[in-house]
Amino acid sequence: MSMVSEAVRWQDQKLSLLDQRLLPHKQAYSAIETLDDAIENIKRLSVRGAPAIGIAAAYALCVSARQYAGEADFDRRLDIDFERLIAARPTAVNLRWAATKVREAAINANPGDALAKMIEEAETIHADDRAACRRIGEAGLSVLAELTPRADGALGLITHCNAGALAVSELGTATAPMYLAHAEGQKLHVYADETRPLLQGARLTAWELDQAGIPVTLLCDNAAASLLASGEVQAAIVGTDRVAANGDVANKIGTFPLAMACQHFGIPFFVACPSSTFDGHSATGADIPIEHRSAEEVIGSVGASVDVYNPAFDITPATMVTAFLTDRGVLRPPFADSLNLLRE
Amino acid sequence: MSMVSEAVRWQDQKLSLLDQRLLPHKQAYSAIETLDDAIENIKRLSVRGAPAIGIAAAYALCVSARQYAGEADFDRRLDIDFERLIAARPTAVNLRWAATKVREAAINANPGDALAKMIEEAETIHADDRAACRRIGEAGLSVLAELTPRADGALGLITHCNAGALAVSELGTATAPMYLAHAEGQKLHVYADETRPLLQGARLTAWELDQAGIPVTLLCDNAAASLLASGEVQAAIVGTDRVAANGDVANKIGTFPLAMACQHFGIPFFVACPSSTFDGHSATGADIPIEHRSAEEVIGSVGASVDVYNPAFDITPATMVTAFLTDRGVLRPPFADSLNLLRE
Repeated sequence: MSMVSEAVRWQDQKLSLLDQRLLPHKQAYSAIETLDDAIENIKRLSVRGAPAIGIAAAYALCVSARQYAGEADFDRRLDIDFERLIAARPTAVNLRWAATKVREAAINANPGDALAKMIEEAETIHADDRAACRRIGEAGLSVLAELTPRADGALGLITHCNAGALAVSELGTATAPMYLAHAEGQKLHVYADETRPLLQGARLTAWELDQAGIPVTLLCDNAAASLLASGEVQAAIVGTDRVAANGDVANKIGTFPLAMACQHFGIPFFVACPSSTFDGHSATGADIPIEHRSAEEVIGSVGASVDVYNPAFDITPATMVTAFLTDRGVLRPPFADSLNLLRE
Repeated sequence: MSMVSEAVRWQDQKLSLLDQRLLPHKQAYSAIETLDDAIENIKRLSVRGAPAIGIAAAYALCVSARQYAGEADFDRRLDIDFERLIAARPTAVNLRWAATKVREAAINANPGDALAKMIEEAETIHADDRAACRRIGEAGLSVLAELTPRADGALGLITHCNAGALAVSELGTATAPMYLAHAEGQKLHVYADETRPLLQGARLTAWELDQAGIPVTLLCDNAAASLLASGEVQAAIVGTDRVAANGDVANKIGTFPLAMACQHFGIPFFVACPSSTFDGHSATGADIPIEHRSAEEVIGSVGASVDVYNPAFDITPATMVTAFLTDRGVLRPPFADSLNLLRE
């Protein structure tokens, strides 16, 4: 079931990335022929979403290494590429995770096989991601089954930013339960926060759900609390860029106030992600670095000259998370225990 | 103390309105020479904010009446003007209130004095509004004095939408304590929510505070919770369009989640308004009708075709309000009692 265009395309050993900045107006792919191409596309958010960035990075390291495969300074150049690549976006743990796996594949290989092993590893990461999304979707189905739909028969769901097919692969993470439930005939009504400042909800989530035939309503982030007050929404499902060992969740700015509103109204708040998103090295959310982005992203449309506070992510405390929907099942509190099990 | 350009200017018996649609790029006044000029400017939101609309309407009726002052059909023409004017924005209660007062001044006057009495009444409405803002500011000063500034000596304040000089007169409502504290030498740092979808915070509040020399930082509405978590903010001050008898507050969409975040972090949440904003006819927030506006306001910049949920206002429960800052002092809980006293 491929619902929408893939964010990362690997065809005939060539890497291309869907330029998501152009959506919903235009679907265009950028060919990635060098590490600089990849870094530029990651930084300017042509490719975004933690797992998609990881997959793109895995292939990008291969594309770059192909240029110096078999040369004497292979290891040194791979190290340099690796360091440059993981610095492209500091909050996304999957970037480092995927790049590390591909680099290790090279380190563990015979010199002559290094590139082939790297590509094999990148393709495995990609395939595993697809499979993980499906299992996340299945975990989601089990929690959605416990909810009582609205009087109109629809299950009202709200999501923030884009943790969909465009951010991951195939089914997405937060969207995976939606796609599977829709395929099973469950009537849904999804509410998509527009997600300021870059409007990924308006540009990407509303677009991909609409493409898949799922009824979707867009709203300003600041209207979510009023929507929840109306009783139209039975659950929130969001993705995440990194989960700390205690269950604190780093995700797109605006996730925390949505979780707070869910807690206020007693609405379940689910976080969907692959196990690779759990970061045992961050004890709590306070240990997760938060990327601050340019003022231009916020004031671009107004054009004023003013100081701007523009964190790209926020930390949702574990106490506001009802459960994690993962490729290894549904994880419920106490998260310190369930996340620990996951790493065993 | 006139901090910024006045929204409504009455000079040498001539009316002009600051065209707020052009801010922050251009400060331009439109001369209002006929009732049609006034209606057009009110409808297209060149002038906005309930009190400012009321003041503009009061003068506009005078400007129009001057054209037929002393004529035999004065009363009939004034009636027609009155009806046309109050239809310009049917939901703005101050418009009807101010136009009614000016019309009554004419009705109660000797025919030869009608125009002069109307102008006197409009000037009184304007002066009363200025004085009310100053008293609101003084009420605000008393609550700000109880707060402990940050380590840098500044008091961090956050506001939503524009309840400033541009919406009211001279000092504004939510901004009045800021202007007075700044004038007294208190170091401030004001954070202005951008206020989607119409960005009044980015276009108007950030601009007017900057004009007054008060340090201001703009942020997306969904970043407010993270900002509050950082400890940089000591209090929130917002305006309101209507307060129910139990203290529930109707204000621009996004006020409720800000109040929720303040409650979560134990940060005081103040609502600044003149006593005329308290509506004894609405028992609770549930009795206040919420205007829903066009999808275009939200999706304009993205251009997608999608269903949109776009309430213009939300209801903040009285339990989240620390105090009301009014022209009749600081009102503290239980609000059912203190608001009742106000009406005595």
